[in-house]
Amino acid sequence: MSENQTWLDEISNNSRYGLKGEIIVKKRSNYQEIIILETRDYGMVLMLDGCWMTTDQGEKYYHECLVHPALSSLKSSTRILIIGGGDGGTARECLKYRKVKSIDLVEIDEEVINLSKKYLPKIGGTAWLDKRLKININDGFQWVKKSPDNYYDAIIIDSSDPSDFSNKLFSSEFYLECKRIMKKNGIIATQSQSPESFKEIHLKICKTLKELFKNSSTMYSFVPFYPSGIWSWTFASEIENDFLKMNYEEINVIEESCEIWNSSFQEGAFKMMPNKIMRELLINNK
Amino acid sequence: MSENQTWLDEISNNSRYGLKGEIIVKKRSNYQEIIILETRDYGMVLMLDGCWMTTDQGEKYYHECLVHPALSSLKSSTRILIIGGGDGGTARECLKYRKVKSIDLVEIDEEVINLSKKYLPKIGGTAWLDKRLKININDGFQWVKKSPDNYYDAIIIDSSDPSDFSNKLFSSEFYLECKRIMKKNGIIATQSQSPESFKEIHLKICKTLKELFKNSSTMYSFVPFYPSGIWSWTFASEIENDFLKMNYEEINVIEESCEIWNSSFQEGAFKMMPNKIMRELLINNK
Repeated sequence: MSENQTWLDEISNNSRYGLKGEIIVKKRSNYQEIIILETRDYGMVLMLDGCWMTTDQGEKYYHECLVHPALSSLKSSTRILIIGGGDGGTARECLKYRKVKSIDLVEIDEEVINLSKKYLPKIGGTAWLDKRLKININDGFQWVKKSPDNYYDAIIIDSSDPSDFSNKLFSSEFYLECKRIMKKNGIIATQSQSPESFKEIHLKICKTLKELFKNSSTMYSFVPFYPSGIWSWTFASEIENDFLKMNYEEINVIEESCEIWNSSFQEGAFKMMPNKIMRELLINNK
Repeated sequence: MSENQTWLDEISNNSRYGLKGEIIVKKRSNYQEIIILETRDYGMVLMLDGCWMTTDQGEKYYHECLVHPALSSLKSSTRILIIGGGDGGTARECLKYRKVKSIDLVEIDEEVINLSKKYLPKIGGTAWLDKRLKININDGFQWVKKSPDNYYDAIIIDSSDPSDFSNKLFSSEFYLECKRIMKKNGIIATQSQSPESFKEIHLKICKTLKELFKNSSTMYSFVPFYPSGIWSWTFASEIENDFLKMNYEEINVIEESCEIWNSSFQEGAFKMMPNKIMRELLINNK
């Protein structure tokens, strides 16, 4: 590693989180500015439009929480849709399940996939070679609109923060399309931002999913390289009973493979809604 | 607020967390460098020796988790010892309990108390005026050594990160003295650092308390302005059964007064040990 070490920061609400490293890639794709930083302490790091997306060292805090509550709760989950997720981490976690027969990964920005494969190969790992994974360079919103009814067992929304091209992925219209293309006993999983740094959008996601689906529930956990370090993931379904109950028979094999997530961790994370967020959701539901 | 806005960072393992604001105080006490920053988004902020200690806006994430698991579990808790805690937040949370009859707050650095009272008055609030609170400018380690056997109902260690003068507060010798001066059905509560940014010291605290006490348990939650955003608090006791069970009859009044903590949040936080930390503790206990 050379000595061109520099600080790079994500700035949010007059706070900043910076990592020191060497900038390996800095380019503008058709959609966003992409930076790849090589660091001593966090491995390779991906930044999109000034926001940290993933780090070799910390990515499991994010990907394990997005995938396992959803996939461990499904008895069958043959067909998965991932919106975003161009770094490959979400696909990697999904492919741990033998019951997963195919994944459509729909990423709008091909450059993110190409650069992730080249510079952050640990994150996708062998997922890129797995025949069950189909890469589609496409707009997630359009993909969902064009998908047939009652088609996917799980829809996993691994989007970046709201921006000009990702805003639609946080809209009621999008969630209703997801509901339409989801099987009746399917599940939707979405990252739902920070209750501390992005409180308004977080509350909006929670409320919208609660309105549109029979069941929805939010878990809170840690992502050290995201603003405030507190992150959330929200799950929604039309199933009455089995929602988020771990039904997968080989769950202990999945647990063994995880750095952060286990069934007790998950149980805890669904109880970690801060009082002040609970009050806002209650007040606004009255 | 004037326009002398500047970035100030805590640096840890080649990452940094910065806040933008105006430096109101920057001075060296007998023990450490003290900076007070006035910010638009986080209120007044205290930094000691380059580490963020507390912010008006976020301090409840820390103080509520340090105090309530311990105090809500005690049937009687007449006499409390706080080691450190010069900003007053820990005392404020303790004084919410009517069963608390007296608090010895032992802070080594009088300047921290004086500056907190002057510039961060919201954090101590009315605690500074409460006759149950006795301030002692003293070395916590010496205070504990000189205290009588079987004296305190709860000992709350609200220390800064390990440093030349606070290192002793993380030693077996110190914990054994705490055990000696604690009542038989008492409890010890300590902040136990980040499992991510300060893993070694975190593991050491967990293991030491497990060795020295009949019961000990660690909770994980969020402190947005501490390195990695993941923080931990460890509780230990010689009680067999009631350890960390909420026994306080007016617990709903305490919950109402909290921004973050509630009984469900607490239950969740004790399950949030990341897999990789669980493995290190198991491996090292073999």
